[in-house]
Amino acid sequence: MFPTDSSAGAPLRLAVDCMGGDHGPSVTLPACRAFLDKHPEAELLLVGRPEALAAAAQWPRCHLVAATEVVSMDDPVEVALRRKKDSSMRVAINQLKAVDGAAPRAQACVSAGNTGALMAVARYLLKTLEGIDRPAIATVMPNQTGRYTTVLDLGANVDCTAEHLLQFAVRGSALVAAVEGREEPTVGLLNIGEEVIKGSETIKRAGELLRQADSAGQLNFYGNVEGNDIFKGTTDLVVCDGFVGNVALKTAEGLATMISTIIKEEFGRNWLTKAAAVLAMPVLKRFKGRVDHRRFNGAALLGLRGLVFKSHGSADAYAFEQALNRAYDAARNRLLDRVHDRIIATLQAMPAAAQGDAGDKVADAAQAA
Amino acid sequence: MFPTDSSAGAPLRLAVDCMGGDHGPSVTLPACRAFLDKHPEAELLLVGRPEALAAAAQWPRCHLVAATEVVSMDDPVEVALRRKKDSSMRVAINQLKAVDGAAPRAQACVSAGNTGALMAVARYLLKTLEGIDRPAIATVMPNQTGRYTTVLDLGANVDCTAEHLLQFAVRGSALVAAVEGREEPTVGLLNIGEEVIKGSETIKRAGELLRQADSAGQLNFYGNVEGNDIFKGTTDLVVCDGFVGNVALKTAEGLATMISTIIKEEFGRNWLTKAAAVLAMPVLKRFKGRVDHRRFNGAALLGLRGLVFKSHGSADAYAFEQALNRAYDAARNRLLDRVHDRIIATLQAMPAAAQGDAGDKVADAAQAA
Repeated sequence: MFPTDSSAGAPLRLAVDCMGGDHGPSVTLPACRAFLDKHPEAELLLVGRPEALAAAAQWPRCHLVAATEVVSMDDPVEVALRRKKDSSMRVAINQLKAVDGAAPRAQACVSAGNTGALMAVARYLLKTLEGIDRPAIATVMPNQTGRYTTVLDLGANVDCTAEHLLQFAVRGSALVAAVEGREEPTVGLLNIGEEVIKGSETIKRAGELLRQADSAGQLNFYGNVEGNDIFKGTTDLVVCDGFVGNVALKTAEGLATMISTIIKEEFGRNWLTKAAAVLAMPVLKRFKGRVDHRRFNGAALLGLRGLVFKSHGSADAYAFEQALNRAYDAARNRLLDRVHDRIIATLQAMPAAAQGDAGDKVADAAQAA
Repeated sequence: MFPTDSSAGAPLRLAVDCMGGDHGPSVTLPACRAFLDKHPEAELLLVGRPEALAAAAQWPRCHLVAATEVVSMDDPVEVALRRKKDSSMRVAINQLKAVDGAAPRAQACVSAGNTGALMAVARYLLKTLEGIDRPAIATVMPNQTGRYTTVLDLGANVDCTAEHLLQFAVRGSALVAAVEGREEPTVGLLNIGEEVIKGSETIKRAGELLRQADSAGQLNFYGNVEGNDIFKGTTDLVVCDGFVGNVALKTAEGLATMISTIIKEEFGRNWLTKAAAVLAMPVLKRFKGRVDHRRFNGAALLGLRGLVFKSHGSADAYAFEQALNRAYDAARNRLLDRVHDRIIATLQAMPAAAQGDAGDKVADAAQAA
């Protein structure tokens, strides 16, 4: 069993690692304040050095939780895991654990701390769900339909089997249902062509597993998609191994940065182009708003026995607030239960041969439950 | 031995598959005409149905070569290879072959035909260089420094070993030297982090091989790069397996399309934004010029005993002309010799253990030469 997302009627509480990220409390506290103002039913556990959090001592629906250490952005995983046992990151994640049969103090945790450390500490403290070896990282990217495409994995799982990819589809479908409110999200398998014969052996086999899961009514498999489909919005969810997902995400970031640099250079070229920039300002602002990566900050670590969200390390207060929003929506919409239920249901519906070791473990767990 | 790129003093000749691509002669002929006007020393072999090429019959420095069939954009590889033996694609590639000891009729070939068919036919007719199993596809993307980043492989090799990645670096370095004029191009290995411990086992091993080749002075290895480095221009060349490269390329295309759609939507919103668009037009035009994908059309198939360039199927005349330019530069700068020489030199300098079967074959070939 794993702790449930929320007790009916009780206020939802997020644990916030206030010291993480490039900027620490100067960003996280204003974000928390803005979040609290907009969510009158929410509570926050602010975790960090008491002196750094003093400004928040009197805020309503806030509880300060002391942690004496901070995991820095370049701390190796070992340091975060073995040496800094009283880090704000670790203490924040610990709030998700049920202690002595009592309900967990928080239903989701948000940190802008370093990804490797966050992944390792979360995995160590919370453990993964039955049948899951390693959490996957899922984020959203804006698409041409005006909505978001959820993509996973983004780097946690470098070498993936076909079964892993199926699992990502299952977990990702639960995430999209909970956070984007789309109950039967369409799933695309990232490939180098639409035809079923395309791709590596692993990808072809993953396609087979996904088609089986679709036939069994466990998920809504669209078929193969290509890199451009992420931004076309062809499917709600795009599934890939962590290496490919990471490269796709960073390639997109790189291109977006280049384009914004070129736009600035061209509008800043001389007084004539600067005048044009002033006149075009409202349009450029709307354009910027639509592709603003801060709006979709907050990646989910999926597959843990607790909801952990990772903010970009360089997030500003607006961006960090979006990560709080995503974590809150996930908790409110019972993402943890949904992931668990979908994993069990999908694997029970799959032929035993397709399940592998992980499937056996889940099947056992389901029978025991 | 393989045919040399050019005989000293003789005019360079390109073989053009005039029927390939989405638009055929309506695009390829105007492109050829513009190319001929700008290259008074170049000759073209225009390959296709005589009636479709009639307009070019009297053009200077042009020879028409009849081919009765056309490989369509959705013809399966088998059809291109086994049934359409008199296709314009096949006849054009055949011009690169030396027959009965005579020099080949053309030094490079350009086609906008379907990639799978082009790759298969080129490989069948020309064969690969010693020690190379399969050609790789290399293209360029613009970067923030105002130059280009060359990326390979883009989809021809889905499952790659570390040795393949080393080979891509060798072939790509020759391409950048010949076409971009950078004699010692820097090479980046596409990964999910800069540290040497990042990535899959294959990637880590490829990093080792690349460091060895760098130490031996055979190439200029920078280290690991990430997706965003393609557009930062961190290195001249970025090496990756075909699956990852294809996803990166198409993701970038997808984002670029989305951004251009959003810019159009925002400037077209109402009369006020339309007026702003008119005023900002010169700036927007310069911006568009700098990111215009047509400017860098023309992917090289590297590793064959002949120079084959692939134009985008949807290329317009301007884009197709750029592919002709790239092929011409490659032939003029002896790309085929350069690739061959670099393969031999790199593998001779590498420890035998790192070479594998391919290395043995190349070493044998080098000794025999």
